[in-house]
Amino acid sequence: MACGGIARIDWRGDAVGDLGAVTEVFGYVMTGEMKVMKQFSLNLKTIFLCTVATMVVSVATVAFAQIDDSLPSWNDGPAKEAIVHFVKEVTTTGGAKFVPSAERIAVFDNDGTLWAEQPMYFQLEFAFDRVKALAPMHPEWKQKQPFKAVLEGDLKTVFAGTKHTLLELMMATHTGNTTEEFSQIVENWIATAKHPKTGRPYTDMVYQPMLELLAYLRANGFKTYIVSGGGIEFIRQWAEKVYGIPPEQVIGSSIKTKFELRGGNPVLVRLPEINFINDKADKPVAINQHIGRRPIAAFGNSDGDLQMLQWVAGGEGPTLKVYIHHTDDKREWSYDRESHIGRLNKGLDEANTKGWTVVDMKKDWTRIFSFDELRKVKDQDRGH
Amino acid sequence: MACGGIARIDWRGDAVGDLGAVTEVFGYVMTGEMKVMKQFSLNLKTIFLCTVATMVVSVATVAFAQIDDSLPSWNDGPAKEAIVHFVKEVTTTGGAKFVPSAERIAVFDNDGTLWAEQPMYFQLEFAFDRVKALAPMHPEWKQKQPFKAVLEGDLKTVFAGTKHTLLELMMATHTGNTTEEFSQIVENWIATAKHPKTGRPYTDMVYQPMLELLAYLRANGFKTYIVSGGGIEFIRQWAEKVYGIPPEQVIGSSIKTKFELRGGNPVLVRLPEINFINDKADKPVAINQHIGRRPIAAFGNSDGDLQMLQWVAGGEGPTLKVYIHHTDDKREWSYDRESHIGRLNKGLDEANTKGWTVVDMKKDWTRIFSFDELRKVKDQDRGH
Repeated sequence: MACGGIARIDWRGDAVGDLGAVTEVFGYVMTGEMKVMKQFSLNLKTIFLCTVATMVVSVATVAFAQIDDSLPSWNDGPAKEAIVHFVKEVTTTGGAKFVPSAERIAVFDNDGTLWAEQPMYFQLEFAFDRVKALAPMHPEWKQKQPFKAVLEGDLKTVFAGTKHTLLELMMATHTGNTTEEFSQIVENWIATAKHPKTGRPYTDMVYQPMLELLAYLRANGFKTYIVSGGGIEFIRQWAEKVYGIPPEQVIGSSIKTKFELRGGNPVLVRLPEINFINDKADKPVAINQHIGRRPIAAFGNSDGDLQMLQWVAGGEGPTLKVYIHHTDDKREWSYDRESHIGRLNKGLDEANTKGWTVVDMKKDWTRIFSFDELRKVKDQDRGH
Repeated sequence: MACGGIARIDWRGDAVGDLGAVTEVFGYVMTGEMKVMKQFSLNLKTIFLCTVATMVVSVATVAFAQIDDSLPSWNDGPAKEAIVHFVKEVTTTGGAKFVPSAERIAVFDNDGTLWAEQPMYFQLEFAFDRVKALAPMHPEWKQKQPFKAVLEGDLKTVFAGTKHTLLELMMATHTGNTTEEFSQIVENWIATAKHPKTGRPYTDMVYQPMLELLAYLRANGFKTYIVSGGGIEFIRQWAEKVYGIPPEQVIGSSIKTKFELRGGNPVLVRLPEINFINDKADKPVAINQHIGRRPIAAFGNSDGDLQMLQWVAGGEGPTLKVYIHHTDDKREWSYDRESHIGRLNKGLDEANTKGWTVVDMKKDWTRIFSFDELRKVKDQDRGH
């Protein structure tokens, strides 16, 4: 069934056409009753293949004519509907829940929310690559842990260490240079490094539905911010190009810097000293420090984002709290309550209790990465 | 001479008409040769009174026809010309010095740059008023310094104290509540408190030429930021209304806050602990932390702003560095190298050495406060 890209899991239970119980479509599994939805970006072949099914369900389509099409990678369902409904409410001038554009602030966690975070946080890969690049200047690292383990590719030993182990690695690889030197290092790395599983640049590992969501919110007068546990200076180097989020709208963990005049030239030197860890209860603190008003929408994927979502939930007026739930072990990864990376346990309970929106990546997203679409096109070309 | 509002000190030395050596005009003194300039907002009476003089100098006016009229409270002169020239350069598409709008960041100190800071920083007045308001809950303050001195209006004793004295006052008056409670307290104070000299609300004590400058820069695609030694949460309560600068574009000193759930309701509690003092060499640090790119224009008035101006000066491409020099003891205050508040000593030397722009408030501004204009109208109505 080649029109799977525009098919969806029927979450309302109002079955229109049973197109098969369990069908492998475009590399991932879709179960249950499926129906074909309106979509503008069909190519001619797809339209031909889908024509009959579309005619059958055309009456049902009317019920969804209201659903916004700025989110083509989102299946229709409760998650998409909650988002679109919220945006319509806060942007309807004269409506009871109208929010002025200046107050339409949306905050997004980064790792696991905007881009992937498996098999380990990408910034850690950066740190490991830095250890390798700096090793010639540090012959002692060959005998000194945790550097020795990194150089030998012995990640088990690296991760067996304490928090201090990783901190030592971060400090050795992220400090001692000026902010401009560091920016250049990150820029070079992000342009060349490849994800260990997909072999693609890390900037390809961003979630296509979230890119659409960022653009959709901005088109509706929202200001979009990143609020990440990752390094603020690390993310800023590519966030504008990849997400359309400018440096001043990136909030993250940071080290201390120091102003110096070097031969009359002012520089900011990156010191081996933690300034702020932007995680858990400190996310609202950083949001207040940087933005100074409470966001009305928050998107996260782990317990580290819980307080950020609580902070937004506590605001007056309409608010949107969304958890991205990693449920797709075919197209991405599947993990939650027990994971060491991006654990979602307390947050999932609270979302369920409070009725927050939980995005089921497997069900709610027609594709996860932009390159998923390429696979789809290939399948179509083969006449599947 | 009732057209003084459109007269200026001739900084080029090309005298057109000697209208008097020292003339008291609209409550302040203007010296030197004066000539009448083009201005669009003249009322009919003013036009009548100025017609003869205007005819005499009409040839000279042509030379200034290029000067932007978005800055009516700025006399033509090197300061205004430097600003307008810079803005034209960076906004001329295809020009050698064009800067994309996203990179047009302008940073402004607040105290002494956007609003007055005499006879003492306004936030200190706020702290003193808070001591009085909180005194009933602190009977011990009647005997305990520095509170005793504040309650008795004995400012000499207060300021004779150490830095710790003021810190203790700030902590006692600025912390212990939630961010929302504090916002409300500031909002109430700013709406009712009056400046000790003028008897006007503090928000009237903003510099009219700087309001015009902020609007002019924004109209030219700039993003305007406050980078103040004052409290970030103090300034944010009124900066949007008064300056058109939203909370997320206010950078300042801060105390630590802590996220708490109180009966399920999330709050940020203001702790009696310094987080960041945004002064001197730490201003570039804060700019980098909050904005993440180097501004291309910076405005300050004291040595506390020197490193901020240096940081901007060190950028690639065109930059604008401006010091506001308090030279007008009639309309405002006159102070620089020896002042305890807003000392401008090293900065003035560096500005002179490096050729930065120095705004002479007495010569460069036709009015300082918006109510200066009201005085002018009154004088005109009396047919002076």
